[in-house]
Amino acid sequence: MDLDFLSSLAIQNDSKVVLVVMDGLGGLAGPTGKTSLEGARTPNLDALAKKGVCGFHDPVGPGITPGSGPAHIGLFGYDPIERLIGRGVLDTAGTPFEFMPGDLASRLNFATLAADGTIADRRAGRISDEEGLRVVKKLAGRISEIDGVELLLQHVKEYRAAAIFRGAKLSGKLCDSDPQQVGKKPLSVAPIEDGQAPDPEAVRAAELANMFIEQARGVLADEPRANFLMMRGFDIYDPLPNFCKLYKWRAAAVASYPMYKGVARLAGMKVIEEGQQSMEDELALVEKIWAEHDFIFLHIKKTDSKGEDGDYQGKMEVIEHFDSLIPRLVALNPDVLCLTGDHSTPCALKSHSWHPVPLCIVAATARRDACQSFGEMSFLAGGLGRVNSTDVLPLLLAHAGRLRKYGA
Amino acid sequence: MDLDFLSSLAIQNDSKVVLVVMDGLGGLAGPTGKTSLEGARTPNLDALAKKGVCGFHDPVGPGITPGSGPAHIGLFGYDPIERLIGRGVLDTAGTPFEFMPGDLASRLNFATLAADGTIADRRAGRISDEEGLRVVKKLAGRISEIDGVELLLQHVKEYRAAAIFRGAKLSGKLCDSDPQQVGKKPLSVAPIEDGQAPDPEAVRAAELANMFIEQARGVLADEPRANFLMMRGFDIYDPLPNFCKLYKWRAAAVASYPMYKGVARLAGMKVIEEGQQSMEDELALVEKIWAEHDFIFLHIKKTDSKGEDGDYQGKMEVIEHFDSLIPRLVALNPDVLCLTGDHSTPCALKSHSWHPVPLCIVAATARRDACQSFGEMSFLAGGLGRVNSTDVLPLLLAHAGRLRKYGA
Repeated sequence: MDLDFLSSLAIQNDSKVVLVVMDGLGGLAGPTGKTSLEGARTPNLDALAKKGVCGFHDPVGPGITPGSGPAHIGLFGYDPIERLIGRGVLDTAGTPFEFMPGDLASRLNFATLAADGTIADRRAGRISDEEGLRVVKKLAGRISEIDGVELLLQHVKEYRAAAIFRGAKLSGKLCDSDPQQVGKKPLSVAPIEDGQAPDPEAVRAAELANMFIEQARGVLADEPRANFLMMRGFDIYDPLPNFCKLYKWRAAAVASYPMYKGVARLAGMKVIEEGQQSMEDELALVEKIWAEHDFIFLHIKKTDSKGEDGDYQGKMEVIEHFDSLIPRLVALNPDVLCLTGDHSTPCALKSHSWHPVPLCIVAATARRDACQSFGEMSFLAGGLGRVNSTDVLPLLLAHAGRLRKYGA
Repeated sequence: MDLDFLSSLAIQNDSKVVLVVMDGLGGLAGPTGKTSLEGARTPNLDALAKKGVCGFHDPVGPGITPGSGPAHIGLFGYDPIERLIGRGVLDTAGTPFEFMPGDLASRLNFATLAADGTIADRRAGRISDEEGLRVVKKLAGRISEIDGVELLLQHVKEYRAAAIFRGAKLSGKLCDSDPQQVGKKPLSVAPIEDGQAPDPEAVRAAELANMFIEQARGVLADEPRANFLMMRGFDIYDPLPNFCKLYKWRAAAVASYPMYKGVARLAGMKVIEEGQQSMEDELALVEKIWAEHDFIFLHIKKTDSKGEDGDYQGKMEVIEHFDSLIPRLVALNPDVLCLTGDHSTPCALKSHSWHPVPLCIVAATARRDACQSFGEMSFLAGGLGRVNSTDVLPLLLAHAGRLRKYGA
């Protein structure tokens, strides 16, 4: 849906809306013949399914398996195809770094280069946060511009960091320098070949990136592990239309992983940072910020991690654990409580997948359906049917009474 | 769907198609736990649900609550976002007024102005049709042009009329002069502010409107009640692609309220005017015009009115009343009989809503589904699933054998 159109209908009121994203929620049947979600004992989720209206969303479109970026971008109402956000921007947005429009961001991976010039370790022995930060500071102390273009460095986590070129007309259409395999030589950064004449802004950006890699190699030469860096996920920062302004509400994000904070920050939500790690920490934060916000995005990570591990039992336990915390959410008495995932992560596939994602909206204004329990099979009888992820936000606004009538 | 594409597939045949729009049909569960539609005793509708294929349509898109204009525009196959029709054009189209492309139409509300220049009554004491018509004639006798631009006046109903500027390059992007509250002074008409430089065509139109309001004030000064008028819902008449030409059929509309006649007339349907008021009147008209038409749009108003009143029982009775007339429609033996609403109007909300609208298509060519009764919960098992309102017309054409195969 066109955002200007949707925004033109948005009105303010006193309602509170909570969007819970259980990452990688949907699955496939496991050894018991049920999905983790169906197999889990979830009396609280079941009660919500019974009360609310249920169905599925397709994160991008039928058959498309999304990364976490597009999956969240869609749930936040933006077109995930039109608004593809590169890893460089996404990871950097998960840090306190303050972007300016036009910044060219790239993810940096510290690596160990062998004497023969091949990559010996793509993660520099998984150096600690402390060591990663130290190396970033060392680099930043020696390199602040490349060939007259400002360069900013930001530590992300462990061996991961980000490099941002600022103030030049550059393109992010660049190949990674990471050869993706140990024992190979790092690649040169180069414009992505697309059959067109090379774009001068991409040529210039590749030049700067390669100069930076070379200079960094000199600065890092005496490091035992992080003696090299690779660049990947180049992208230009292009601000998203602001989620708070579009929908006239005070929106906040509670998440424990940087990437989800990042995508929320890119949308213009207030990202709450209090070192939250556990689901209990996150719930406590939601309670703490409740009065001052109208929309809260709550991200639960572990459902996805267990799916990626292929840990059917573990995913079930994470879901049961979250279920036990639901009464705390319900006690806040949100006007609209939406429970869904960003994409499916079936244990059987050990990866994200394209399968439609369970979706439940609980609100006094929801039309009842026949769903009696929270699960993939049950939701097939749901009243929402199958919508696109970008339809979820308009539905939340509608159920909260936050959209005025369109036309006479 | 692209109309040129759809139209390119349309073929003529002898089939008869009836589209029944029970205005505001869908609802939410009432005190009995059922919607009005589920609670009503509807043996005839149930028989049709059993025979036909059922499901839902979204009038504009998930979460969007439409006015009656966009809701019907979508059912007639036009994109309701691209084709937003302002109240001035919509109301005028419900009268016999003949538009010309480029006309700028505005709704007029006669009002009572107090001695202190504030609005004492926004509806001029709800003057009668007769009095309204008299005042319009009086105005028209004295004002036929404003600053060299032709002005046409048309009575609509009671205190409502329309003013149409013709022959000048004008824009309809204007604010209303109605302050929406008694005790306030009327507003000046002005271009809608959108952060752009004012559009000269809107500036000119605002100038003409304000001059007209001032002149009308003089003409109406001696009226006891309708001594003033307010302008609202400005819009330029931009003809819709003709429904009869697009689909190669003779289409007629049977409705009792001006607005629904208006939207059908805008689409190019023949609007039957024989003073019909009751559902029985309307059914008799359908029977009367049966032989000469291929497509008949039949509009039932009272389902919506009862929904707007929050009258759960009343809405049920209207549905039961209409159900009792169904045998007359069935007796005509239409090839395709479609029963739906334009939008939902849940009694619980006392307003239009975004909830998907029940949809049933009865035709020999319909694929059977499991629906045994006509209602929201039952239709969740329907074979149509959830479509957009703009998909309804292609489905009707298809079930009537009026679309040829696309491509080899």
